Amino acid sequence: MDLIKSKDNPNIKMYQKLLASKKYRRQYGMFVLEGLRIFEDAIKENAVLHCVFITQSAFVKYGEALNLLVDNNDNKYPVYYITDELGEKISDTSSSQGIFAVALKDMRYTLDTIKKNGRYMILANLQDPGNIGTIIRTADAVGIDAVILCECCDLYNPKVIRSTMGSIFRVPILDNQNITEVIEFFKKNNTKVYASVVESNAVSLTNCDFSISSAVVIGNEGSGLTGEISEMCNEKITIKMTGNIDSLNAAMASVIIMWEMGRDHSG
Amino acid sequence: MDLIKSKDNPNIKMYQKLLASKKYRRQYGMFVLEGLRIFEDAIKENAVLHCVFITQSAFVKYGEALNLLVDNNDNKYPVYYITDELGEKISDTSSSQGIFAVALKDMRYTLDTIKKNGRYMILANLQDPGNIGTIIRTADAVGIDAVILCECCDLYNPKVIRSTMGSIFRVPILDNQNITEVIEFFKKNNTKVYASVVESNAVSLTNCDFSISSAVVIGNEGSGLTGEISEMCNEKITIKMTGNIDSLNAAMASVIIMWEMGRDHSG
Repeated sequence: MDLIKSKDNPNIKMYQKLLASKKYRRQYGMFVLEGLRIFEDAIKENAVLHCVFITQSAFVKYGEALNLLVDNNDNKYPVYYITDELGEKISDTSSSQGIFAVALKDMRYTLDTIKKNGRYMILANLQDPGNIGTIIRTADAVGIDAVILCECCDLYNPKVIRSTMGSIFRVPILDNQNITEVIEFFKKNNTKVYASVVESNAVSLTNCDFSISSAVVIGNEGSGLTGEISEMCNEKITIKMTGNIDSLNAAMASVIIMWEMGRDHSG
Repeated sequence: MDLIKSKDNPNIKMYQKLLASKKYRRQYGMFVLEGLRIFEDAIKENAVLHCVFITQSAFVKYGEALNLLVDNNDNKYPVYYITDELGEKISDTSSSQGIFAVALKDMRYTLDTIKKNGRYMILANLQDPGNIGTIIRTADAVGIDAVILCECCDLYNPKVIRSTMGSIFRVPILDNQNITEVIEFFKKNNTKVYASVVESNAVSLTNCDFSISSAVVIGNEGSGLTGEISEMCNEKITIKMTGNIDSLNAAMASVIIMWEMGRDHSG
């Protein structure tokens, strides 16, 4: 197997561009993964990989796990060995495990192909990668049928990928959607669309009937939903609690909302 | 007002030691704050400050807000001006606002002085500062009566302080507690103590009666609760959901548990 030593290798150059640039990720429909666990998740969930880089040290350290993955590969994607120095250079973390992959974006899902009559989270203008990651993880845990991103930070941003802890491969996700089209689509398809707001006169989350097909729209971390968007929805809902509501951020509020969406169903 | 230029100034040296060392924070019962918002929260919630440092640029930029805070001070704590260079040197963030304070730990609370017949979160061996911060914020939102830390990472770690977003000044918190003593105390004081576990035969969270005095024990991010600790509790509870439970981390599980603790009361 080839050992890549040079940062001028075309595959290495592509990796670095995909790591750094949303534009490039969009143009090529690919993104990067780093670390053993996310690599294992990608394999387990049948993500389509373009190529894999493993440092010499990583092969010594994680050889057994990696051999299994490489053996099961059936040559679907090339695996390149790279020097530790090159691994350090392309790593996005402070302590790299030396395992890298280029993956193809999952283009299977559209509004028309996601599960009908489900429960959906619509994210409008969320910008924090960690929040998007937490929401996708929770959607995975609760069994939300799709997460839909409208004008959010790039789903394939390495920070988002990392913070999903593999859930990105398990949850149907649509990105780069138009919020107006999405809300209209769900309303036409017998799905009740709720705007999540911080308003004391909105309906309490605990009074919503999530046993029917439902979608909840979450707004920007700082400014929430615009009036225009919340007017488009069927109903405004809010999380009523006794303490200091301002201390909940968008991700924590989303965890509570998704839990309630799942809670009604489980009995 | 004095302008401090030297990193050898005794107050600056103290700040840096408190920033870097848990041992020093424990020895002196003090900790550090950085940034306008947390400083404002500290003032608003009547935290006791030992001293404040403001850079020359910060005074120009945030002068109005800071003047108000300094004017209300009544000389309870000295305010020092420092050079921008010194601000850069002592800052713990990548883009410093140039506002720093040394605060005294809040020693008011003990097991005997927290509210009786309440709802409590007991954290056993949690090590991630961000998780501790999220839990304290959520406790603030839901109105949990006390958060109790047993063998966790240092509550006064700058990362924990930052991630609480000011909730550290609003929630009664006990740190450095002994888990056995804490569980025994609550059991003796008519409080039902639940062990949060990932076991399918444990009681479902949604079947717990949190209208009575209740405490939930959360375990380490990786290894959960030890068998010994969960045996000490009255009952084992678990979060039942339809999706992939492994994708919930300790902080997200805690958000759901605290929400349920508050939900029974408000409904």
